[in-house]
Amino acid sequence: MQSIQSYINDNKDRFLNELIELLKIPSISADSAYKGDVLKTAEVIKISLENAGCDHVEICKTDGYPIVYGEKIIDKNLPTVLVYGHYDVQPPDPLDLWNSPPFEPVIQKTELHPEGAIFARGACDDKGQMYMHVKALEYMTSNNELPCNVKFMIEGEEEVGSANLGIFVANNREKLANDVILISDTGMIAKDVPSITTGLRGLSYVEVEVTGPNRDLHSGLYGGAVANPINVLTKMIASLHDENNHITIPGFYDKVENLSDAERAEMAKAPFSLEAYKKSLDIDAVYGEEGYTTNERNSIRPTLDVNGIWGGYIGEGAKTVIASQAFAKISMRLVPHQDWEEITELFKTHFESIAPKGVTVKVKPHHGGQGYVTPIDSVGYKAASKAYEQTFGKTPIPQRSGGSIPIVSLFEKELKSKTILMGFGLDSDAIHSPNEHFGVWNYLKGIETIPWFYKYFTELKK
Amino acid sequence: MQSIQSYINDNKDRFLNELIELLKIPSISADSAYKGDVLKTAEVIKISLENAGCDHVEICKTDGYPIVYGEKIIDKNLPTVLVYGHYDVQPPDPLDLWNSPPFEPVIQKTELHPEGAIFARGACDDKGQMYMHVKALEYMTSNNELPCNVKFMIEGEEEVGSANLGIFVANNREKLANDVILISDTGMIAKDVPSITTGLRGLSYVEVEVTGPNRDLHSGLYGGAVANPINVLTKMIASLHDENNHITIPGFYDKVENLSDAERAEMAKAPFSLEAYKKSLDIDAVYGEEGYTTNERNSIRPTLDVNGIWGGYIGEGAKTVIASQAFAKISMRLVPHQDWEEITELFKTHFESIAPKGVTVKVKPHHGGQGYVTPIDSVGYKAASKAYEQTFGKTPIPQRSGGSIPIVSLFEKELKSKTILMGFGLDSDAIHSPNEHFGVWNYLKGIETIPWFYKYFTELKK
Repeated sequence: MQSIQSYINDNKDRFLNELIELLKIPSISADSAYKGDVLKTAEVIKISLENAGCDHVEICKTDGYPIVYGEKIIDKNLPTVLVYGHYDVQPPDPLDLWNSPPFEPVIQKTELHPEGAIFARGACDDKGQMYMHVKALEYMTSNNELPCNVKFMIEGEEEVGSANLGIFVANNREKLANDVILISDTGMIAKDVPSITTGLRGLSYVEVEVTGPNRDLHSGLYGGAVANPINVLTKMIASLHDENNHITIPGFYDKVENLSDAERAEMAKAPFSLEAYKKSLDIDAVYGEEGYTTNERNSIRPTLDVNGIWGGYIGEGAKTVIASQAFAKISMRLVPHQDWEEITELFKTHFESIAPKGVTVKVKPHHGGQGYVTPIDSVGYKAASKAYEQTFGKTPIPQRSGGSIPIVSLFEKELKSKTILMGFGLDSDAIHSPNEHFGVWNYLKGIETIPWFYKYFTELKK
Repeated sequence: MQSIQSYINDNKDRFLNELIELLKIPSISADSAYKGDVLKTAEVIKISLENAGCDHVEICKTDGYPIVYGEKIIDKNLPTVLVYGHYDVQPPDPLDLWNSPPFEPVIQKTELHPEGAIFARGACDDKGQMYMHVKALEYMTSNNELPCNVKFMIEGEEEVGSANLGIFVANNREKLANDVILISDTGMIAKDVPSITTGLRGLSYVEVEVTGPNRDLHSGLYGGAVANPINVLTKMIASLHDENNHITIPGFYDKVENLSDAERAEMAKAPFSLEAYKKSLDIDAVYGEEGYTTNERNSIRPTLDVNGIWGGYIGEGAKTVIASQAFAKISMRLVPHQDWEEITELFKTHFESIAPKGVTVKVKPHHGGQGYVTPIDSVGYKAASKAYEQTFGKTPIPQRSGGSIPIVSLFEKELKSKTILMGFGLDSDAIHSPNEHFGVWNYLKGIETIPWFYKYFTELKK
């Protein structure tokens, strides 16, 4: 396998250009205006899997966006790796904060990426990271280096809750049968600190609606005399945290796993500079649940964040109106053992119960998923660890992530196999934000590292 | 003056059609996209004042939208009435709640308006009510019934705070000299319960901005570890009222006039059905400051309402983002003796002081104005009362309104004259809301009543 580096050197420009073409398609699954683009992206993925050496590729219909399935089976007696990724992206707004248009990719140097980074929506999450696997496969097939079977399952609804993937997986257990699932949709601690994500938070995402009077009212004639849905909504949301930033929903913490002091001490060893963290975000202080560190707050503790709020007059100037309705999108990140459907129900019951008279409240669950913790003594973890050692010269650190990939716990339930999360992005890559980017170095390092995982996994499985 | 009713009968269709043409122009002062329409409306007002018999009409430039000034001076020894109104309108959104387009006026019957009502933005506030005065003048001049001098001052920035009217008035005291100011920009209790507004609330309107991290963040990777500007904003706004719906800004109530039990008992005599009020708004309960009735809450007590709030992802579907910024528009209705500039300063100081670490807060004052109370023993009030008796057959009830016409207290200060608020709209006319309308009966009744005011005011002044 010595030739992977030289293969990358010879094909580097093409690898970048192919990804750039993929990033030009605005495959925003949350917005139905982009339906055609999302479907077109699935076609592009199909062709690239065929070109990379898959024997059989198909676009599998679902009730939502299709799933692209591809496979190369070289020997039924050899292990099988199932690669999961997604071809849809987050909405790009607020557009005015992008330095270049989100679907016109550009490569620019940054302090952390002196070799350049690709700026575009989806560059890191997840088109760039998913496409590393396609190019790693191309290398292995074209150099006769594929040591085992491989299957790809690339979906188009990850950013909107993967509602149809679960059904697809449950209905295709045999087709998707595998020995390990490999996903690159997370990050690593730093370019010189490789890490493997061993825990993910679960997610419950809801939308709430507060309705007061049957029409917008003049705030002078009615102000003070009727419940103002926006005032009420702020009061209801504010009450969801107490003065220690503990979430107040009854039963919310009942199943939360409390880590031992030893485990917390182990976590605290991960390199982290609070000053650098604050500086990178331009904030004068961090903020969160009393009694926990920043790294604990965003990994082993559940949270409740408002992701969007709106109501009343939000245009230029002033309008003296009492809105008839106010809305918010609220998500809760959950930790292992919290069941997302149970938490969604607890939220709904509680939120409706705290509505004052004079308004009606609706809670609409959007989507959710369970948290996940993977053991570090599995064959998959060991193979990944050896792969990083090979290309980074360092043993990767196991790391809990605050993010969610709801489908991971479903994979374990339906397919009975462990997922290995080999992420090559950085926290500073601004995924879900304006100016999302992915380092050229990281992209190529991912392509270089993945074939080693196949090699070691096949060897360790023997 | 017996002929006013027959003059209205003869000219009714023209009176309606002229108003409808005026309502077709979207003179939205809050939105600079409509600048041309606002300016065009001033031209139309100028021509209609000339046609109604003014000797001299001019469009007076300001730093914002112009003021249309018109006058008919018949004898310098006779009293002078100054009519004030505004030709700008509120933004029409939310557009999807209108049953017909806001700038395509239609006349339709309603339960309260069996003679039909004109549905359009500005129908009541204030184009319709202002135009009653133009048509009343036309009647008086064309029938040789004008008993005194008259001046018109019609502005185009009332809905955005009248910032330039104050300057204009201060610079033109002599030109605007008068014995009484007459305004129709308020309502009456019911079609069979005429009333004269004797009190208005003041207003302080601010916009607040909460900034956290320097960019939108992924709510999984950062959730729980940094201050979420939307969560913080909801907490800050919620804290502005206590559990009794008392406003918590230190010093806010210091200058509030507390009415005597006798005065409150007098107020309580005004006809009011809480059941009908709740039914008309489709609410199961009213909501407001403990210890006060609905009519007190929206007239003699100050309030704090959020008029608009926004931040984060507000599109279709879900986005797991922590927004960098969150915003709200907040207005406070004030009662006599509360100084709006002082209250704005108290708000700003308090709101900035309650910001937690991890965010920065900006408060931007939009505009404001003082409250006003007018005595019921003035010549102007008596003349208005007699005019209503003449056309309604009933003595009007003096009434405090919850709305604000900030300029009224400025008129008193600069021009040393009292303002009489003869409103012909109904609370149910949905001003500032979708489906704003103005009853045809009310419009014509206003035109009929106004000339009697001129007659009695001139007689009583002798």
